[in-house]
Amino acid sequence: MITALDHIAVAVPNLEKAIQRFCEDFGLPLDGTEDVEAAKTSTAFIPLPPTNIELVHPLNGEGPIAKYLEKRGGGLHHLCFRSDDIYADVERLKAKGYAFITDAPSPGAHNSLTIFIHPKSCDGILVELNQPADEH
Amino acid sequence: MITALDHIAVAVPNLEKAIQRFCEDFGLPLDGTEDVEAAKTSTAFIPLPPTNIELVHPLNGEGPIAKYLEKRGGGLHHLCFRSDDIYADVERLKAKGYAFITDAPSPGAHNSLTIFIHPKSCDGILVELNQPADEH
Repeated sequence: MITALDHIAVAVPNLEKAIQRFCEDFGLPLDGTEDVEAAKTSTAFIPLPPTNIELVHPLNGEGPIAKYLEKRGGGLHHLCFRSDDIYADVERLKAKGYAFITDAPSPGAHNSLTIFIHPKSCDGILVELNQPADEH
Repeated sequence: MITALDHIAVAVPNLEKAIQRFCEDFGLPLDGTEDVEAAKTSTAFIPLPPTNIELVHPLNGEGPIAKYLEKRGGGLHHLCFRSDDIYADVERLKAKGYAFITDAPSPGAHNSLTIFIHPKSCDGILVELNQPADEH
């Protein structure tokens, strides 16, 4: 089942400027940055427990965030819900008719498991499901 | 100063279907719905303390959400940060060069004060600042 809103991902054209905006200008905390090879992003983590804002920028100019920025500029990219049993949630939602971008969950950041529901199944919203490493 | 992520607003073309998706299919809680005249929305509240997801649908087919749905279909509409002194935050951010959609905060839902930063000042992201009624 889905247990929490893990993060809100914001696609940003300039990571340093976005960190300045959210952390210096808006006064939110920063919990470091990380290159997430699996997602092809450079990501800055803004902890707002129990959720996070993640500022995502293309790693080496490639990947899905690069395509999003090209097409739409920066913006709110996706919501990620935490699951305590991602395989069961995927099966349950597939049975309800939800389409997923990939067939099965795959490794994400920090050895988590991750999968995206297709926006066409969510009225245009991109939704990620993620199960942390210590829960699978 | 900004003290919290108040909510994430999701524009939805069909409120009943969206409630079914988020609450029945995803298993998230529902804290009722409300017609918010000031924002011209019918809104469903999904509490994920200390933040919320708000599913927003045009009230009587009018207002900014109607225009957004026409242009882009459903999607992640805006982030709202809570402020403990919205006038001071607006002045501070204006001094840093931020543009706002209106000149000054105006009454929002539940007698709060609300204002939106222009997306052109936030790399395409629409950001609301909101000060609850009991804090002004």
